[in-house]
Amino acid sequence: MDQVALESNAVFLGIEYLAVFICGLSGGLAAIHKKYDLFSILVIAWVTALGGGITRDVLLGALPPVGITDRGFVLTALASGFIVAIVHPEIEHLKWSMIVTDALALGLFAVNGTAKALAYHSSGMTAAFLGMFTALAGGTIRDVLLNEVPSILRDKHLYAVPSFIGCLLTVFAARATDHWRLGLDGEMILDVCIVIIVFVLRMLSVAFNITFPGALKRHRSHLP
Amino acid sequence: MDQVALESNAVFLGIEYLAVFICGLSGGLAAIHKKYDLFSILVIAWVTALGGGITRDVLLGALPPVGITDRGFVLTALASGFIVAIVHPEIEHLKWSMIVTDALALGLFAVNGTAKALAYHSSGMTAAFLGMFTALAGGTIRDVLLNEVPSILRDKHLYAVPSFIGCLLTVFAARATDHWRLGLDGEMILDVCIVIIVFVLRMLSVAFNITFPGALKRHRSHLP
Amino acid sequence: MDQVALESNAVFLGIEYLAVFICGLSGGLAAIHKKYDLFSILVIAWVTALGGGITRDVLLGALPPVGITDRGFVLTALASGFIVAIVHPEIEHLKWSMIVTDALALGLFAVNGTAKALAYHSSGMTAAFLGMFTALAGGTIRDVLLNEVPSILRDKHLYAVPSFIGCLLTVFAARATDHWRLGLDGEMILDVCIVIIVFVLRMLSVAFNITFPGALKRHRSHLP
Repeated sequence: MDQVALESNAVFLGIEYLAVFICGLSGGLAAIHKKYDLFSILVIAWVTALGGGITRDVLLGALPPVGITDRGFVLTALASGFIVAIVHPEIEHLKWSMIVTDALALGLFAVNGTAKALAYHSSGMTAAFLGMFTALAGGTIRDVLLNEVPSILRDKHLYAVPSFIGCLLTVFAARATDHWRLGLDGEMILDVCIVIIVFVLRMLSVAFNITFPGALKRHRSHLP
Repeated sequence: MDQVALESNAVFLGIEYLAVFICGLSGGLAAIHKKYDLFSILVIAWVTALGGGITRDVLLGALPPVGITDRGFVLTALASGFIVAIVHPEIEHLKWSMIVTDALALGLFAVNGTAKALAYHSSGMTAAFLGMFTALAGGTIRDVLLNEVPSILRDKHLYAVPSFIGCLLTVFAARATDHWRLGLDGEMILDVCIVIIVFVLRMLSVAFNITFPGALKRHRSHLP
Repeated sequence: MDQVALESNAVFLGIEYLAVFICGLSGGLAAIHKKYDLFSILVIAWVTALGGGITRDVLLGALPPVGITDRGFVLTALASGFIVAIVHPEIEHLKWSMIVTDALALGLFAVNGTAKALAYHSSGMTAAFLGMFTALAGGTIRDVLLNEVPSILRDKHLYAVPSFIGCLLTVFAARATDHWRLGLDGEMILDVCIVIIVFVLRMLSVAFNITFPGALKRHRSHLP
């Protein structure tokens, strides 16, 4: 199973904790900017880090969701909230490192979410949806709670698009693994490549200000 | 089963695809007004069209929900997003047609959602709730994501009330079908009538500016 | 089972209906302040009163949730909406009584939500999360729908913290009951004590303006 491929590897598990931690930091920082109290900082850090996985598990029927049952992830998310409440000036300073690690988290959550859905025998389309929820829902819930338009809708840089490509590729990788009997190692190499592809696409978009087009610009209707 | 009654009929299935399509158009249009990029337009179109059914399925435990598993509905919703990104000036022009089709979609989603819940052996009250979620949750999620007060709360015209009446009538129709052994045809005729009733109530409310009363207007408390 | 301890007692069940009713009143009042129509008042009253339990049941997989299946709770919530639409000037007048009863509801929902999760064989951590959702999610959904930042994030007074302490204590009480075989009576006495502790903490916080600290106030980064 694909999920096993990712989670059987200590390096990957380490990166996943790092991804949760980084998402928690960025969530906590948003709460600090609004001058909320420590409890709210922890809530927002937790929901940003684990809200995506919770959404995936609710839609998948894998209940109760990992975001309230897995001690390691919950403690990591809460720890990120505590830490950012103390070292927030330094975190602000490290803005560029945050963007880099967040891009890594984006790829990882997309691959992991898709893989988990496939392990639950979802179709490819459903798995791609669930991978995107894993990657994008946490930040969306954070923005809804902070009463802002979600940044994935607002931000002109590519954010959702790389995660979508990552989800699609993960589905193909799982199909290829089944078809050519690549085994656990082969699958993991494919998964690592996909995380890197998502990461590179995201970083290129930020670095070179690449954006996605909007609706066709037309101001007159061709109807009578 | 009631749901079978509706879905066994090609005409009805066609209308349901039309309803999804129209809801997607109206959702995409809202995203275009906010000048979002194509990806956001697709997301908002999809959530407006299928978010109601997703909410129903999550609450019903029918997971993963139809909104991420049914290829036909997903492609219809995404197609509506693509199309409105191109022909939005024409859609704006057709405002009155949109209100008419949206009213049709309202009735259809209410009847269909209630029927699906009854097919899952929900009680009448639960089925009526789930029918209303099907009809109303998509637009509500769209408005929450766009950071606006949901239009079903804000809009003074009757919107939720016709859908509520439709859900109640669907429960009664299912009971009547069981009781008098009306068969599939009888049930479908009843369902069609209910869709028409919801449609007419909604259109009358818009055409004649009929609104629902608010809280009793009193400014002094009778307490000491 | 813990939940049975609470619900087997008529007094407790009565208090729970009162808690639902009070939450409904406060929700309905918020909708009246925004000058919404009667339907919206009912929706907001219902979601404030039962949204917490619905969130708990969705995450727990206890579907369909009590908030759309339990006739008694649904009617109580809707009744509170109808009543506040008539007697809202009096309710405004009784502000202090509302704060008192709301604090009671906070404790009761926390204990009850945690106990229900434990009865579904959740771990202690998961049960504490679900208890907090039960106590806090209703008001949060209300504020999201009314397009405001949720009051649990905004309000500086202790609100979430007492409910968190209540959830933790409920987990310990259940463990103690198992360990020392305290029986139904012993467990209920513990539960009552916890509700009172949450209540007192909340009231002290409001009465003496006790607040929770925010992020550490530092304006300079120690990084080079």
